[in-house]
Amino acid sequence: MKQIYLDNNATTCVDEKVLEAMLPYLKENYANPSSMYEPARISARAIEKSRSQVADFLGVEDSKQIIFTSCGTEGANTAIKGVVAQFADKEKSNLIASRVEHPCVLSVYESLEKKGYKTNYVGVDENGDIDINSLISKVNEDTILVSIMHANNETGAIYPVKEIAKEVKKINKDTKIFVDGVQAAGKIPINLDDSEIDFYSISGHKFHAPKGIGALYIKKGTLFEPFMLGGHQENSLRAGTLNTPYIVGLGEAAKLAKEALSFELSEVKRLRDKLEDGILSQLQNAKLNSKAKNRVPNTTNIGFEYIEGELILLYLNELGIYASSGSACTSGSLDPSHVLRAQKVPFTSLHGSIRFSLSRFTTEEEIDYTIKHVPEVIKKLAKISPFQKELNELGL
Amino acid sequence: MKQIYLDNNATTCVDEKVLEAMLPYLKENYANPSSMYEPARISARAIEKSRSQVADFLGVEDSKQIIFTSCGTEGANTAIKGVVAQFADKEKSNLIASRVEHPCVLSVYESLEKKGYKTNYVGVDENGDIDINSLISKVNEDTILVSIMHANNETGAIYPVKEIAKEVKKINKDTKIFVDGVQAAGKIPINLDDSEIDFYSISGHKFHAPKGIGALYIKKGTLFEPFMLGGHQENSLRAGTLNTPYIVGLGEAAKLAKEALSFELSEVKRLRDKLEDGILSQLQNAKLNSKAKNRVPNTTNIGFEYIEGELILLYLNELGIYASSGSACTSGSLDPSHVLRAQKVPFTSLHGSIRFSLSRFTTEEEIDYTIKHVPEVIKKLAKISPFQKELNELGL
Repeated sequence: MKQIYLDNNATTCVDEKVLEAMLPYLKENYANPSSMYEPARISARAIEKSRSQVADFLGVEDSKQIIFTSCGTEGANTAIKGVVAQFADKEKSNLIASRVEHPCVLSVYESLEKKGYKTNYVGVDENGDIDINSLISKVNEDTILVSIMHANNETGAIYPVKEIAKEVKKINKDTKIFVDGVQAAGKIPINLDDSEIDFYSISGHKFHAPKGIGALYIKKGTLFEPFMLGGHQENSLRAGTLNTPYIVGLGEAAKLAKEALSFELSEVKRLRDKLEDGILSQLQNAKLNSKAKNRVPNTTNIGFEYIEGELILLYLNELGIYASSGSACTSGSLDPSHVLRAQKVPFTSLHGSIRFSLSRFTTEEEIDYTIKHVPEVIKKLAKISPFQKELNELGL
Repeated sequence: MKQIYLDNNATTCVDEKVLEAMLPYLKENYANPSSMYEPARISARAIEKSRSQVADFLGVEDSKQIIFTSCGTEGANTAIKGVVAQFADKEKSNLIASRVEHPCVLSVYESLEKKGYKTNYVGVDENGDIDINSLISKVNEDTILVSIMHANNETGAIYPVKEIAKEVKKINKDTKIFVDGVQAAGKIPINLDDSEIDFYSISGHKFHAPKGIGALYIKKGTLFEPFMLGGHQENSLRAGTLNTPYIVGLGEAAKLAKEALSFELSEVKRLRDKLEDGILSQLQNAKLNSKAKNRVPNTTNIGFEYIEGELILLYLNELGIYASSGSACTSGSLDPSHVLRAQKVPFTSLHGSIRFSLSRFTTEEEIDYTIKHVPEVIKKLAKISPFQKELNELGL
């Protein structure tokens, strides 16, 4: 059976070249990079090479501003908890985030609320765009932190994080800016040196490195309390034995993603647009949820009115087409997506919304197959939907 | 040149069988285990198999009590911070730990002290054994947590953690017990079901899995605040996309370590004893630091009086013999070991103390080579030591 993987925002395959780069560090070069003898220096040098590759990928000249983490979630926890730990006066605190952040941000915010910190959320409009004026209006002298993602995992919407950082700092120069860049890395250019962003997190498995490795950019001079406490690794900013094989893989993946960026922005985008147009043009009940002004080139989110999303996924699964109804992190939950609710996707298509996310390994043949089969599945499901009248009116 | 790796307490090589088990998950089986489609179930099943293997390794029947972490440091941070987060009354807090804990415990304790929590430390005697009566005498109704390692990384001393847990709970049944088992796993039997321990952490790279993966046992019903906040992975106890390849590797490594345990306790111990006797019998200035009643079979720590440890390591490095002067986590620091200071190793040998740690891959030939060359190195360095008189009296 065909296997068509269109869930690259959940995770990606490991690029063969990434695995190849990692293998020596899973075999002979196993010394602890913190040790003093010669083999350890081989590991330590490989780690510094990777740090430079990741820095280069993020548009950062001084690679000392990059630390390695175990995932995007750790990056978010490190930045948010690390900034907040420095402010004891919970009453005089103001933490801002968008309502469409990933659970790794929203969960930390909820936990801080329970501890007495004050939070403020900014919504998005019906296209999924952030209301920057509303965000800026919430910034005051008590604003410790603004957390805003670079690209949304579910819709692919790109948020103007540089502009937001600039405007926030105009009002309160001490406010720290954390950007969750997990879904932007590898899809759009990133240039942190040319920004006022203080923290920027990425996760390797979203751009063809393995799951379980990420990086966090911390602007030079930014004070925070380290999250993982212990030994002196990473200049005492992140304890724990360094995961040399995956760090080497992350560096290689960053290098390859940078090289592939123009391909993402042209060819991957072309296939995504073909898929999107192909589905929307064949189905009257298909409504585009990915409507933001700017979005990443690989993602489309489409709501199928009056059809149940879980059923769509089940039928697609049987055809070997793998997509998702939300983030993998919330899979298994029956709650509709908080992202789509925030942009007020109507109830009629909210529960039938499917995300298709491509990668540089997606082929035209796979997209053609998907364009052919998705309408068949929707038409089949329309026959058993309780909304026969509404679907008939839409020609289904 | 020969490469004789005698620093297995810093990290170990990845067993070929572990790598073999991991590879399919670094290649074709890359789906996010939290996703809903068929390939994701392959990953999810592999993760549950590993969870059972790790549980079996730790003498735990119900594998739901195991969560995966990114390292031993994360395990310690999760347990300690997670317990403490539930107690707001810092004034009425009492956190106990031994003075010979790993930095991942001591650093968290120091951080908690700065926040106003009350800590209490228990020392060791000159053999490196813990004074249990002294520890128990510090337990009171305010004791939230006792942190005690199962085996010490520097000397290999084994601490009676089950007995300690039992005695502590007799005085205060609500006190939680965290055991750092990182240096015990793979070296001595572990049977947590038969204990009153609440948290037990292990790290894969100490028993031939890769660096960057660990596990934490959390006794059923133990309340704590999760450390890594975000998605619903690991029953909402640890957020972050699951690192399928390394988790599979950890399970395989646990299975292999359990199988190899009797070999560790016999053959690895025999080689360690041969190395230890071989060095001690040839050098009058060599003093054993690993003198605890019980110790793990792979470790010896020897102090060479009047000789500088860093120089010994440098000379050994040139001979292709890799050992260490303390934990890798504190490498680069010139402070003498806090573990050896706690057991009052005299100044004369404190700075010349070297840890040799073997693995099941250490060969007799390697041990013979080391027994031959260590005394040559020490004699060479004795000639340039400023302590000529003292060394002459010791026949050097």
